[in-house]
Amino acid sequence: MSPASDNMIEMQVDVQQILRDGVERTDRALERLLPPVTQTPASIHGAMRHSVFAGGKRLRPVLAMEAARTIETAHGGSGLPEGNEDLGAAIEMLHTYSLIHDDLPALDNDDLRRGKPTCHVAYGEATAILAGDALQTLAYQTLAGMHCPAQQAVKIVGLIAEATGTVEGMIGGQVLDLEGEHTKPTAESVLAIHRAKTGALIRVSIVAGGIYAGAGAEDARRLTEFGTKSGLAFQIVDDVLDMTQDSQHLGKTAGKDVASDKATWPAVFGIEASRKDANRLINEAFVALEPYGEAAAGLKAVARYLVERTH
Amino acid sequence: MSPASDNMIEMQVDVQQILRDGVERTDRALERLLPPVTQTPASIHGAMRHSVFAGGKRLRPVLAMEAARTIETAHGGSGLPEGNEDLGAAIEMLHTYSLIHDDLPALDNDDLRRGKPTCHVAYGEATAILAGDALQTLAYQTLAGMHCPAQQAVKIVGLIAEATGTVEGMIGGQVLDLEGEHTKPTAESVLAIHRAKTGALIRVSIVAGGIYAGAGAEDARRLTEFGTKSGLAFQIVDDVLDMTQDSQHLGKTAGKDVASDKATWPAVFGIEASRKDANRLINEAFVALEPYGEAAAGLKAVARYLVERTH
Repeated sequence: MSPASDNMIEMQVDVQQILRDGVERTDRALERLLPPVTQTPASIHGAMRHSVFAGGKRLRPVLAMEAARTIETAHGGSGLPEGNEDLGAAIEMLHTYSLIHDDLPALDNDDLRRGKPTCHVAYGEATAILAGDALQTLAYQTLAGMHCPAQQAVKIVGLIAEATGTVEGMIGGQVLDLEGEHTKPTAESVLAIHRAKTGALIRVSIVAGGIYAGAGAEDARRLTEFGTKSGLAFQIVDDVLDMTQDSQHLGKTAGKDVASDKATWPAVFGIEASRKDANRLINEAFVALEPYGEAAAGLKAVARYLVERTH
Repeated sequence: MSPASDNMIEMQVDVQQILRDGVERTDRALERLLPPVTQTPASIHGAMRHSVFAGGKRLRPVLAMEAARTIETAHGGSGLPEGNEDLGAAIEMLHTYSLIHDDLPALDNDDLRRGKPTCHVAYGEATAILAGDALQTLAYQTLAGMHCPAQQAVKIVGLIAEATGTVEGMIGGQVLDLEGEHTKPTAESVLAIHRAKTGALIRVSIVAGGIYAGAGAEDARRLTEFGTKSGLAFQIVDDVLDMTQDSQHLGKTAGKDVASDKATWPAVFGIEASRKDANRLINEAFVALEPYGEAAAGLKAVARYLVERTH
């Protein structure tokens, strides 16, 4: 359901249509870019597709797409720059590789994701490790083949690699999360983990989308600020939904003690304060987009949807 | 020891000096590019450095460097194009990531490499998986930051990703090798595994070195042919040395049955025929470099050294 909103600009945008369109474009690109299961060696291509087509919502590609639309429109163009779905597909490959490796027995040891067997359960550990590796590789092959000027492509490759690396990037966040598993989370540790583990890839999806559409340094600065704040807001909402949904499953009252040693926002600040923080952050994030006026309507609508969703 | 050679061009080149120089340049670049162990999260940076600085011979960076020198010299320049050691460092990161993941318990389950504990033995499996991931990521960050025109950088990123991917690339070769572990190798299966698992990265090191120095399509075609044939020759020599050295360790006679279910060249063709194949391939490879005359002397000297080495 699209959430009610009194923002006139957002009301002109059909967020459900944007999300559906984003999923369709991204899935078509992924279908084209991933080797078919008939391609030797078949096992790894089956494993890659198993995890890539496991029902992901393609939120990062949608954010990249709407950021691209914002910059394209603000620069006097109309709609989406051609071929931008390959950027979204590459980002989704990186997101999926991180999930496959995170689920491995040596890391989180998860058997199920979205109700389906995880990659190593379905294909064995060796193939799952290599399938994750291969999705990272294919992501960069895809970025190198994008239909945009080489200078933009190189810039995007560098920013995405940085955002998924060890220094305040996705892998660094995974390490911090693993290392902190048996210690009580603090405001500082949760902020550092969220910024790195999930925040950096969300932020760079938005910035890279803008660069694909020709964003200059000032655009990139605005999108970075928007992406940093909204990315943290999305994760806080995720944390709240995880906790309240877990509680429903467990038949217990939602609350701080349910997940007190997980590095989540509500574990540190409580559920009500977390909801307020998410709303405050998204409003602050919107300030960075003010210079774009209506050109940012789609991007803002998707962000508003993500913090107001209830499942 | 530098092998004796009656080739006049090669005799003018000090191959040991080239190799020493290549190791030094590559190690300096790696030292600069890898985050220090004092950088948070420290464990993963320690693990990355543990494996990157485990005594590798930096053969792929040396080949990239000499290919760059060949093209630079042939195009009227002198010596090495500036900053080309970052290309070699990125290739070495990719090589190292593949070794870390190959050594994992779910894959080859090796405890030692070059007499040192493998990454997962020293740092645990979770950190080793993420350290391999991070080396792949840092390789692309490094390629995106190279001091060369963006079009060359994008081309290099695309070619390297393809050569390390699943379709006739490094990961594909690892899968074929794992899948073939319990079946007797055939000429066809060994060729497919060698071409993909080790050949593709060696070939692309040479081609990427050339592109870094401004290689055109015709140069790239020649370097591809040279790299494909010499890469296979190097792997055949590796196989022969592994077998004869293993035999010495085991106190057994070297021969076909020692490693009859490993996918090696001598396991299929025998040791003597393998040595002949390596020599034939390297001579064929040299034909592709004839148009460069003396400009290719360093590249040929390194290749000759690699097939004539005895340890």
